[in-house]
Amino acid sequence: MSDQMKNALLEYTTRLGDDAVVLGHRISEWVSYGPFLEEDIAYGNVALDYIGRARMFYAYAAELADDGRDEDDFAYMRNDREYHNLLLLELPKGDFAYSQVRQLFADAYYTLMLPHLLHSKDERLSAIAAKAIKETKYHLRRSRDWVLRLGEGTDESHRRAQKALDQLWGYTHEMFDMDDTEQLLADAGIGVDVSKLRDEWLAMVTEIVTNATLTVPEDSWAVRGGRIGYHTENLGHMLTEMQIVHRSHPGCKW
Amino acid sequence: MSDQMKNALLEYTTRLGDDAVVLGHRISEWVSYGPFLEEDIAYGNVALDYIGRARMFYAYAAELADDGRDEDDFAYMRNDREYHNLLLLELPKGDFAYSQVRQLFADAYYTLMLPHLLHSKDERLSAIAAKAIKETKYHLRRSRDWVLRLGEGTDESHRRAQKALDQLWGYTHEMFDMDDTEQLLADAGIGVDVSKLRDEWLAMVTEIVTNATLTVPEDSWAVRGGRIGYHTENLGHMLTEMQIVHRSHPGCKW
Repeated sequence: MSDQMKNALLEYTTRLGDDAVVLGHRISEWVSYGPFLEEDIAYGNVALDYIGRARMFYAYAAELADDGRDEDDFAYMRNDREYHNLLLLELPKGDFAYSQVRQLFADAYYTLMLPHLLHSKDERLSAIAAKAIKETKYHLRRSRDWVLRLGEGTDESHRRAQKALDQLWGYTHEMFDMDDTEQLLADAGIGVDVSKLRDEWLAMVTEIVTNATLTVPEDSWAVRGGRIGYHTENLGHMLTEMQIVHRSHPGCKW
Repeated sequence: MSDQMKNALLEYTTRLGDDAVVLGHRISEWVSYGPFLEEDIAYGNVALDYIGRARMFYAYAAELADDGRDEDDFAYMRNDREYHNLLLLELPKGDFAYSQVRQLFADAYYTLMLPHLLHSKDERLSAIAAKAIKETKYHLRRSRDWVLRLGEGTDESHRRAQKALDQLWGYTHEMFDMDDTEQLLADAGIGVDVSKLRDEWLAMVTEIVTNATLTVPEDSWAVRGGRIGYHTENLGHMLTEMQIVHRSHPGCKW
Protein backbone atom coordinates (compact mmCIF):
# COMPACT_ATOMS: atom_id res chain seq x y z
CA MET A 1 0.00 0.00 0.00
CA SER A 2 1.37 3.43 -0.97
CA ASP A 3 2.09 6.02 1.71
CA GLN A 4 -0.60 8.20 0.23
CA MET A 5 -3.16 5.42 0.48
CA LYS A 6 -2.05 4.52 3.98
CA ASN A 7 -2.38 8.12 5.16
CA ALA A 8 -5.80 8.35 3.58
CA LEU A 9 -6.86 5.16 5.32
CA LEU A 10 -5.64 6.48 8.66
CA GLU A 11 -7.54 9.72 8.15
CA TYR A 12 -10.69 7.87 7.06
CA THR A 13 -10.60 5.44 9.97
CA THR A 14 -10.04 8.30 12.39
CA ARG A 15 -13.00 10.23 10.94
CA LEU A 16 -15.27 7.24 11.41
CA GLY A 17 -13.99 6.86 14.96
CA ASP A 18 -14.55 10.55 15.64
CA ASP A 19 -18.11 10.33 14.34
CA ALA A 20 -18.80 7.37 16.58
CA VAL A 21 -17.29 8.72 19.79
CA VAL A 22 -18.86 12.16 19.41
CA LEU A 23 -22.36 10.83 18.78
CA GLY A 24 -21.87 8.19 21.48
CA HIS A 25 -20.97 10.89 23.99
CA ARG A 26 -23.95 13.04 23.05
CA ILE A 27 -26.28 10.06 23.48
CA SER A 28 -24.68 9.22 26.81
CA GLU A 29 -25.64 12.69 28.06
CA TRP A 30 -29.24 11.46 28.11
CA VAL A 31 -28.47 8.68 30.56
CA SER A 32 -30.50 9.29 33.76
CA TYR A 33 -32.68 11.84 31.92
CA GLY A 34 -34.77 9.41 29.84
CA PRO A 35 -38.56 9.91 29.85
CA PHE A 36 -38.96 6.45 31.41
CA LEU A 37 -36.68 3.70 32.64
CA GLU A 38 -36.69 1.48 29.57
CA GLU A 39 -35.82 4.41 27.34
CA ASP A 40 -33.08 5.41 29.73
CA ILE A 41 -31.51 1.96 29.50
CA ALA A 42 -31.93 1.95 25.72
CA TYR A 43 -30.05 5.22 25.49
CA GLY A 44 -27.23 3.77 27.53
CA ASN A 45 -27.04 0.78 25.22
CA VAL A 46 -27.01 2.84 22.05
CA ALA A 47 -24.29 5.07 23.51
CA LEU A 48 -22.24 1.98 24.28
CA ASP A 49 -22.71 0.70 20.73
CA TYR A 50 -21.26 3.91 19.35
CA ILE A 51 -18.42 4.10 21.84
CA GLY A 52 -17.60 0.46 21.17
CA ARG A 53 -17.54 1.28 17.47
CA ALA A 54 -15.22 4.19 18.15
CA ARG A 55 -12.86 1.86 20.01
CA MET A 56 -12.68 -0.46 17.01
CA PHE A 57 -11.98 2.38 14.59
CA TYR A 58 -9.44 4.00 16.90
CA ALA A 59 -7.68 0.72 17.64
CA TYR A 60 -7.27 0.23 13.90
CA ALA A 61 -6.19 3.85 13.44
CA ALA A 62 -3.56 3.39 16.14
CA GLU A 63 -2.17 0.36 14.30
CA LEU A 64 -2.08 2.30 11.05
CA ALA A 65 -0.41 5.30 12.68
CA ASP A 66 2.13 3.00 14.35
CA ASP A 67 3.59 5.88 16.35
CA GLY A 68 3.07 4.64 19.89
CA ARG A 69 -0.42 6.02 20.30
CA ASP A 70 -3.25 3.76 21.41
CA GLU A 71 -7.05 4.09 21.09
CA ASP A 72 -7.22 6.24 24.23
CA ASP A 73 -4.75 8.71 22.75
CA PHE A 74 -7.01 9.11 19.75
CA ALA A 75 -10.08 9.69 21.90
CA TYR A 76 -8.65 11.72 24.75
CA MET A 77 -5.44 13.39 23.66
CA ARG A 78 -6.58 15.25 20.55
CA ASN A 79 -8.20 18.69 20.68
CA ASP A 80 -11.25 19.89 18.79
CA ARG A 81 -9.28 21.08 15.78
CA GLU A 82 -7.83 17.58 15.47
CA TYR A 83 -11.26 15.96 15.50
CA HIS A 84 -12.69 15.40 12.03
CA ASN A 85 -16.26 14.35 12.85
CA LEU A 86 -19.44 15.52 11.14
CA LEU A 87 -20.79 18.72 12.68
CA LEU A 88 -24.26 17.20 12.95
CA LEU A 89 -23.05 14.78 15.58
CA GLU A 90 -21.38 17.31 17.88
CA LEU A 91 -24.38 19.61 18.36
CA PRO A 92 -25.64 19.70 21.97
CA LYS A 93 -28.30 17.16 22.82
CA GLY A 94 -31.05 19.79 22.93
CA ASP A 95 -34.49 18.51 23.88
CA PHE A 96 -35.66 14.94 23.38
CA ALA A 97 -37.12 15.64 19.94
CA TYR A 98 -33.89 17.29 18.82
CA SER A 99 -31.80 14.28 19.83
CA GLN A 100 -34.21 11.81 18.24
CA VAL A 101 -34.34 13.67 14.93
CA ARG A 102 -30.54 13.84 14.87
CA GLN A 103 -30.49 10.14 15.66
CA LEU A 104 -32.86 9.38 12.81
CA PHE A 105 -30.63 11.28 10.40
CA ALA A 106 -27.58 9.37 11.62
CA ASP A 107 -29.26 5.96 11.80
CA ALA A 108 -30.67 6.27 8.28
CA TYR A 109 -27.21 7.29 7.10
CA TYR A 110 -25.46 4.33 8.69
CA THR A 111 -28.19 1.97 7.47
CA LEU A 112 -27.17 2.90 3.94
CA MET A 113 -23.47 3.45 4.40
CA LEU A 114 -22.46 0.41 6.44
CA PRO A 115 -23.48 -2.26 3.86
CA HIS A 116 -21.04 -0.57 1.47
CA LEU A 117 -18.33 -0.50 4.12
CA LEU A 118 -19.03 -4.21 4.68
CA HIS A 119 -17.80 -4.80 1.13
CA SER A 120 -14.66 -2.76 1.64
CA LYS A 121 -11.50 -4.41 0.37
CA ASP A 122 -10.04 -3.53 3.77
CA GLU A 123 -10.84 -6.49 6.01
CA ARG A 124 -10.71 -4.52 9.23
CA LEU A 125 -13.18 -1.90 8.06
CA SER A 126 -15.39 -4.65 6.73
CA ALA A 127 -15.34 -6.47 10.07
CA ILE A 128 -16.28 -3.31 11.99
CA ALA A 129 -19.12 -2.69 9.54
CA ALA A 130 -20.40 -6.24 10.02
CA LYS A 131 -20.77 -5.67 13.74
CA ALA A 132 -22.19 -2.17 13.39
CA ILE A 133 -24.86 -3.15 10.87
CA LYS A 134 -26.64 -5.34 13.41
CA GLU A 135 -26.72 -2.54 15.97
CA THR A 136 -27.88 -0.02 13.44
CA LYS A 137 -31.04 -1.96 12.59
CA TYR A 138 -32.09 -1.65 16.21
CA HIS A 139 -31.04 2.01 16.38
CA LEU A 140 -33.08 2.96 13.34
CA ARG A 141 -36.17 1.16 14.65
CA ARG A 142 -35.93 3.22 17.81
CA SER A 143 -35.34 6.63 16.28
CA ARG A 144 -37.99 6.05 13.58
CA ASP A 145 -40.54 5.02 16.21
CA TRP A 146 -39.76 8.06 18.31
CA VAL A 147 -40.00 10.50 15.42
CA LEU A 148 -43.36 8.98 14.45
CA ARG A 149 -44.55 9.17 18.05
CA LEU A 150 -43.40 12.75 18.51
CA GLY A 151 -44.77 13.92 15.15
CA GLU A 152 -48.15 12.32 15.68
CA GLY A 153 -48.25 13.04 19.42
CA THR A 154 -49.32 16.29 21.03
CA ASP A 155 -49.15 19.74 19.46
CA GLU A 156 -46.12 20.38 21.63
CA SER A 157 -44.24 17.25 20.59
CA HIS A 158 -45.11 17.88 16.94
CA ARG A 159 -43.90 21.46 17.19
CA ARG A 160 -40.63 20.43 18.80
CA ALA A 161 -39.98 17.65 16.30
CA GLN A 162 -40.56 20.03 13.38
CA LYS A 163 -38.33 22.63 14.98
CA ALA A 164 -35.60 20.01 15.34
CA LEU A 165 -35.93 19.04 11.68
CA ASP A 166 -35.64 22.68 10.64
CA GLN A 167 -32.67 23.37 12.90
CA LEU A 168 -30.72 20.25 11.96
CA TRP A 169 -31.41 19.99 8.25
CA GLY A 170 -28.57 22.23 7.15
CA TYR A 171 -26.11 19.95 8.94
CA THR A 172 -27.14 16.83 7.00
CA HIS A 173 -25.49 17.78 3.72
CA GLU A 174 -22.01 17.32 5.11
CA MET A 175 -22.73 13.59 5.52
CA PHE A 176 -22.63 13.18 1.75
CA ASP A 177 -19.52 15.26 0.99
CA MET A 178 -16.49 13.64 -0.60
CA ASP A 179 -12.99 15.09 -0.57
CA ASP A 180 -9.81 13.85 -2.21
CA THR A 181 -9.04 11.56 0.71
CA GLU A 182 -12.38 9.81 0.63
CA GLN A 183 -12.49 9.72 -3.17
CA LEU A 184 -9.11 8.00 -3.28
CA LEU A 185 -10.34 5.30 -0.91
CA ALA A 186 -13.70 4.94 -2.66
CA ASP A 187 -11.96 4.51 -6.01
CA ALA A 188 -9.78 1.84 -4.44
CA GLY A 189 -12.79 -0.06 -3.17
CA ILE A 190 -11.82 0.65 0.45
CA GLY A 191 -14.02 3.59 1.41
CA VAL A 192 -17.66 4.36 0.69
CA ASP A 193 -18.70 6.93 -1.91
CA VAL A 194 -21.24 8.61 0.34
CA SER A 195 -22.16 11.17 -2.33
CA LYS A 196 -24.15 8.40 -3.98
CA LEU A 197 -26.22 7.74 -0.87
CA ARG A 198 -27.96 11.09 -0.59
CA ASP A 199 -30.99 10.29 -2.78
CA GLU A 200 -31.68 7.04 -1.02
CA TRP A 201 -31.21 8.68 2.38
CA LEU A 202 -33.56 11.49 1.42
CA ALA A 203 -36.20 8.99 0.31
CA MET A 204 -35.90 7.02 3.54
CA VAL A 205 -36.04 10.10 5.77
CA THR A 206 -38.83 11.68 3.73
CA GLU A 207 -41.03 8.62 4.15
CA ILE A 208 -40.57 8.53 7.91
CA VAL A 209 -40.92 12.27 8.36
CA THR A 210 -44.02 12.42 6.19
CA ASN A 211 -45.59 9.48 8.00
CA ALA A 212 -44.95 11.38 11.21
CA THR A 213 -47.10 14.23 9.74
CA LEU A 214 -43.96 16.38 9.74
CA THR A 215 -42.46 18.38 6.88
CA VAL A 216 -39.08 17.77 5.27
CA PRO A 217 -37.26 21.14 5.30
CA GLU A 218 -36.07 22.80 2.12
CA ASP A 219 -32.37 22.78 1.26
CA SER A 220 -31.94 26.47 1.96
CA TRP A 221 -28.72 26.37 3.96
CA ALA A 222 -25.80 24.08 4.71
CA VAL A 223 -22.95 24.10 7.21
CA ARG A 224 -19.80 22.04 6.80
CA GLY A 225 -16.22 21.99 8.06
CA GLY A 226 -16.03 19.16 10.57
CA ARG A 227 -14.00 16.93 8.25
CA ILE A 228 -11.18 19.49 8.22
CA GLY A 229 -11.41 20.41 11.91
CA TYR A 230 -13.56 23.55 11.66
CA HIS A 231 -16.14 22.96 14.36
CA THR A 232 -18.99 24.64 16.14
CA GLU A 233 -18.08 25.91 19.60
CA ASN A 234 -19.91 22.93 21.07
CA LEU A 235 -17.25 20.32 20.35
CA GLY A 236 -14.62 22.01 22.51
CA HIS A 237 -16.94 22.10 25.50
CA MET A 238 -17.91 18.49 24.92
CA LEU A 239 -14.31 17.30 24.68
CA THR A 240 -13.48 19.23 27.84
CA GLU A 241 -15.94 17.06 29.76
CA MET A 242 -15.07 13.92 27.87
CA GLN A 243 -11.31 14.26 28.29
CA ILE A 244 -10.81 15.73 31.76
CA VAL A 245 -10.44 12.41 33.58
CA HIS A 246 -7.91 11.04 31.12
CA ARG A 247 -6.01 14.30 30.94
CA SER A 248 -5.98 14.49 34.74
CA HIS A 249 -4.45 11.03 34.96
CA PRO A 250 -2.50 10.63 31.73
CA GLY A 251 -1.45 7.07 31.02
CA CYS A 252 -3.53 5.74 33.92
CA LYS A 253 -4.70 2.14 33.45
CA TRP A 254 -7.93 0.84 34.99
CA MET B 1 9.26 27.55 62.50
CA SER B 2 8.17 24.04 63.50
CA ASP B 3 7.12 21.52 60.86
CA GLN B 4 3.62 21.56 62.33
CA MET B 5 3.41 25.32 62.00
CA LYS B 6 4.86 25.26 58.50
CA ASN B 7 2.35 22.63 57.37
CA ALA B 8 -0.45 24.65 58.91
CA LEU B 9 0.72 27.77 57.11
CA LEU B 10 0.88 25.91 53.79
CA GLU B 11 -2.64 24.60 54.29
CA TYR B 12 -3.94 28.02 55.31
CA THR B 13 -2.31 29.81 52.39
CA THR B 14 -3.66 27.19 50.00
CA ARG B 15 -7.17 27.57 51.41
CA LEU B 16 -7.07 31.32 50.87
CA GLY B 17 -5.80 30.76 47.34
CA ASP B 18 -8.56 28.23 46.69
CA ASP B 19 -11.20 30.67 47.94
CA ALA B 20 -9.85 33.37 45.64
CA VAL B 21 -9.51 31.31 42.46
CA VAL B 22 -12.89 29.62 42.85
CA LEU B 23 -14.77 32.87 43.42
CA GLY B 24 -12.72 34.57 40.70
CA HIS B 25 -13.69 31.86 38.23
CA ARG B 26 -17.35 32.09 39.15
CA ILE B 27 -17.30 35.85 38.65
CA SER B 28 -15.51 35.46 35.33
CA GLU B 29 -18.42 33.33 34.10
CA TRP B 30 -20.44 36.55 33.97
CA VAL B 31 -18.09 38.19 31.49
CA SER B 32 -20.03 38.91 28.28
CA TYR B 33 -23.34 38.34 30.09
CA GLY B 34 -23.47 41.56 32.14
CA PRO B 35 -26.71 43.56 32.06
CA PHE B 36 -24.85 46.46 30.45
CA LEU B 37 -21.34 47.15 29.21
CA GLU B 38 -19.95 48.94 32.26
CA GLU B 39 -21.14 46.15 34.53
CA ASP B 40 -19.64 43.62 32.20
CA ILE B 41 -16.25 45.30 32.43
CA ALA B 42 -16.59 45.66 36.19
CA TYR B 43 -17.19 41.94 36.49
CA GLY B 44 -14.06 41.25 34.50
CA ASN B 45 -12.06 43.51 36.77
CA VAL B 46 -13.34 41.94 39.97
CA ALA B 47 -12.63 38.48 38.58
CA LEU B 48 -9.07 39.57 37.81
CA ASP B 49 -8.67 40.91 41.34
CA TYR B 50 -9.57 37.55 42.78
CA ILE B 51 -7.47 35.56 40.34
CA GLY B 52 -4.54 37.87 41.00
CA ARG B 53 -5.04 37.29 44.70
CA ALA B 54 -5.06 33.54 44.09
CA ARG B 55 -1.75 33.82 42.26
CA MET B 56 -0.17 35.58 45.24
CA PHE B 57 -1.43 32.99 47.71
CA TYR B 58 -0.45 30.08 45.45
CA ALA B 59 2.99 31.49 44.71
CA TYR B 60 3.58 31.70 48.45
CA ALA B 61 2.13 28.21 48.98
CA ALA B 62 4.50 26.86 46.32
CA GLU B 63 7.46 28.37 48.15
CA LEU B 64 6.28 26.88 51.43
CA ALA B 65 5.70 23.46 49.86
CA ASP B 66 9.14 23.61 48.23
CA ASP B 67 8.48 20.42 46.28
CA GLY B 68 8.91 21.66 42.72
CA ARG B 69 5.30 22.77 42.24
CA ASP B 70 4.52 26.28 41.08
CA GLU B 71 1.38 28.41 41.31
CA ASP B 72 -0.10 26.79 38.19
CA ASP B 73 0.26 23.35 39.74
CA PHE B 74 -1.78 24.53 42.70
CA ALA B 75 -4.51 25.97 40.50
CA TYR B 76 -4.65 23.44 37.71
CA MET B 77 -3.23 20.15 38.88
CA ARG B 78 -5.30 19.47 41.99
CA ASN B 79 -8.70 17.80 41.84
CA ASP B 80 -11.86 18.82 43.68
CA ARG B 81 -11.11 16.72 46.75
CA GLU B 82 -7.79 18.53 47.06
CA TYR B 83 -9.43 21.96 46.94
CA HIS B 84 -10.21 23.38 50.38
CA ASN B 85 -12.32 26.40 49.48
CA LEU B 86 -15.53 27.55 51.15
CA LEU B 87 -18.60 25.87 49.62
CA LEU B 88 -20.33 29.24 49.27
CA LEU B 89 -17.83 30.30 46.64
CA GLU B 90 -18.12 27.23 44.38
CA LEU B 91 -21.89 27.32 43.89
CA PRO B 92 -22.91 27.99 40.25
CA LYS B 93 -23.36 31.62 39.33
CA GLY B 94 -27.15 31.32 39.20
CA ASP B 95 -29.02 34.44 38.17
CA PHE B 96 -27.68 37.95 38.61
CA ALA B 97 -29.28 38.40 42.04
CA TYR B 98 -27.82 35.11 43.21
CA SER B 99 -24.30 36.11 42.21
CA GLN B 100 -24.63 39.58 43.74
CA VAL B 101 -25.91 38.28 47.06
CA ARG B 102 -23.08 35.76 47.20
CA GLN B 103 -20.70 38.57 46.35
CA LEU B 104 -22.08 40.73 49.16
CA PHE B 105 -21.57 37.88 51.64
CA ALA B 106 -17.98 37.43 50.44
CA ASP B 107 -17.14 41.13 50.21
CA ALA B 108 -18.46 41.84 53.71
CA TYR B 109 -16.42 38.89 54.96
CA TYR B 110 -13.17 40.07 53.37
CA THR B 111 -13.82 43.63 54.51
CA LEU B 112 -13.65 42.34 58.07
CA MET B 113 -11.11 39.57 57.68
CA LEU B 114 -8.39 41.27 55.64
CA PRO B 115 -7.51 44.02 58.17
CA HIS B 116 -6.70 41.23 60.63
CA LEU B 117 -4.62 39.42 58.04
CA LEU B 118 -2.83 42.71 57.44
CA HIS B 119 -1.53 42.46 60.99
CA SER B 120 -0.35 38.90 60.56
CA LYS B 121 3.13 38.22 61.86
CA ASP B 122 3.72 36.56 58.51
CA GLU B 123 4.98 39.30 56.21
CA ARG B 124 3.87 37.63 53.01
CA LEU B 125 0.29 37.16 54.16
CA SER B 126 0.30 40.73 55.43
CA ALA B 127 1.49 42.04 52.06
CA ILE B 128 -1.20 40.15 50.18
CA ALA B 129 -3.82 41.51 52.58
CA ALA B 130 -2.57 45.06 52.03
CA LYS B 131 -3.20 44.78 48.31
CA ALA B 132 -6.50 42.96 48.67
CA ILE B 133 -7.97 45.45 51.13
CA LYS B 134 -7.97 48.22 48.54
CA GLU B 135 -9.77 46.05 46.00
CA THR B 136 -12.28 44.87 48.54
CA LYS B 137 -13.53 48.38 49.31
CA TYR B 138 -14.51 48.73 45.68
CA HIS B 139 -15.99 45.23 45.56
CA LEU B 140 -18.20 45.84 48.58
CA ARG B 141 -19.45 49.12 47.21
CA ARG B 142 -20.56 47.35 44.06
CA SER B 143 -22.26 44.36 45.62
CA ARG B 144 -23.95 46.52 48.26
CA ASP B 145 -25.28 48.89 45.61
CA TRP B 146 -26.56 45.99 43.53
CA VAL B 147 -28.32 44.30 46.45
CA LEU B 148 -29.98 47.61 47.33
CA ARG B 149 -31.00 48.13 43.73
CA LEU B 150 -32.36 44.62 43.33
CA GLY B 151 -34.17 44.63 46.67
CA GLU B 152 -35.78 48.00 46.06
CA GLY B 153 -36.29 47.42 42.33
CA THR B 154 -39.16 45.53 40.74
CA ASP B 155 -41.22 42.78 42.35
CA GLU B 156 -39.27 40.34 40.23
CA SER B 157 -35.83 41.61 41.26
CA HIS B 158 -36.92 41.73 44.92
CA ARG B 159 -38.25 38.19 44.75
CA ARG B 160 -35.04 36.93 43.17
CA ALA B 161 -32.80 38.71 45.66
CA GLN B 162 -34.77 37.28 48.59
CA LYS B 163 -34.67 33.83 47.07
CA ALA B 164 -30.89 34.14 46.71
CA LEU B 165 -30.56 35.18 50.35
CA ASP B 166 -32.65 32.19 51.43
CA GLN B 167 -30.76 29.74 49.22
CA LEU B 168 -27.28 30.95 50.17
CA TRP B 169 -27.68 31.69 53.87
CA GLY B 170 -26.89 28.17 55.04
CA TYR B 171 -23.53 28.34 53.27
CA THR B 172 -22.37 31.43 55.16
CA HIS B 173 -21.71 29.72 58.47
CA GLU B 174 -18.70 27.86 57.15
CA MET B 175 -16.91 31.19 56.68
CA PHE B 176 -16.60 31.52 60.46
CA ASP B 177 -15.51 27.98 61.31
CA MET B 178 -12.15 27.37 62.93
CA ASP B 179 -10.36 24.01 62.96
CA ASP B 180 -7.09 23.01 64.65
CA THR B 181 -5.02 24.26 61.74
CA GLU B 182 -6.53 27.72 61.72
CA GLN B 183 -6.59 27.91 65.52
CA LEU B 184 -2.90 27.12 65.70
CA LEU B 185 -2.13 29.95 63.29
CA ALA B 186 -4.52 32.39 64.95
CA ASP B 187 -2.93 31.69 68.34
CA ALA B 188 0.48 32.36 66.79
CA GLY B 189 -0.66 35.72 65.43
CA ILE B 190 -0.31 34.49 61.85
CA GLY B 191 -3.86 33.57 60.86
CA VAL B 192 -7.19 35.27 61.54
CA ASP B 193 -9.64 33.99 64.14
CA VAL B 194 -12.65 34.23 61.86
CA SER B 195 -15.01 32.89 64.53
CA LYS B 196 -14.81 36.32 66.13
CA LEU B 197 -15.98 38.06 62.97
CA ARG B 198 -19.44 36.55 62.67
CA ASP B 199 -21.31 39.11 64.83
CA GLU B 200 -19.78 42.05 63.01
CA TRP B 201 -20.44 40.42 59.62
CA LEU B 202 -24.04 39.73 60.58
CA ALA B 203 -24.53 43.36 61.62
CA MET B 204 -23.03 44.63 58.38
CA VAL B 205 -25.05 42.30 56.18
CA THR B 206 -28.24 42.86 58.18
CA GLU B 207 -28.02 46.61 57.70
CA ILE B 208 -27.57 46.33 53.93
CA VAL B 209 -30.21 43.63 53.51
CA THR B 210 -32.72 45.50 55.63
CA ASN B 211 -32.07 48.75 53.76
CA ALA B 212 -32.76 46.81 50.59
CA THR B 213 -36.22 45.97 52.06
CA LEU B 214 -35.15 42.32 52.13
CA THR B 215 -35.26 39.88 55.04
CA VAL B 216 -32.26 38.27 56.71
CA PRO B 217 -32.99 34.52 56.74
CA GLU B 218 -33.09 32.54 59.97
CA ASP B 219 -30.23 30.23 60.88
CA SER B 220 -32.24 27.08 60.21
CA TRP B 221 -29.65 25.08 58.27
CA ALA B 222 -25.93 25.02 57.55
CA VAL B 223 -23.72 23.14 55.10
CA ARG B 224 -19.97 22.75 55.54
CA GLY B 225 -17.14 20.53 54.36
CA GLY B 226 -15.19 22.57 51.82
CA ARG B 227 -12.25 23.06 54.17
CA ILE B 228 -11.63 19.31 54.27
CA GLY B 229 -12.38 18.68 50.60
CA TYR B 230 -16.03 17.60 50.82
CA HIS B 231 -17.64 19.61 48.06
CA THR B 232 -20.89 20.06 46.24
CA GLU B 233 -20.97 18.44 42.80
CA ASN B 234 -20.49 21.89 41.28
CA LEU B 235 -16.79 22.24 42.02
CA GLY B 236 -15.78 19.22 39.94
CA HIS B 237 -17.62 20.57 36.90
CA MET B 238 -16.11 24.01 37.43
CA LEU B 239 -12.55 22.67 37.73
CA THR B 240 -13.08 20.58 34.59
CA GLU B 241 -13.61 23.77 32.63
CA MET B 242 -10.97 25.71 34.49
CA GLN B 243 -8.27 23.08 34.16
CA ILE B 244 -8.74 21.58 30.70
CA VAL B 245 -6.36 23.90 28.89
CA HIS B 246 -3.55 23.40 31.38
CA ARG B 247 -4.13 19.67 31.62
CA SER B 248 -4.18 19.47 27.81
CA HIS B 249 -0.80 21.20 27.63
CA PRO B 250 0.93 20.32 30.90
CA GLY B 251 3.96 22.44 31.61
CA CYS B 252 3.21 24.73 28.67
CA LYS B 253 4.52 28.28 29.07
CA TRP B 254 2.86 31.28 27.44
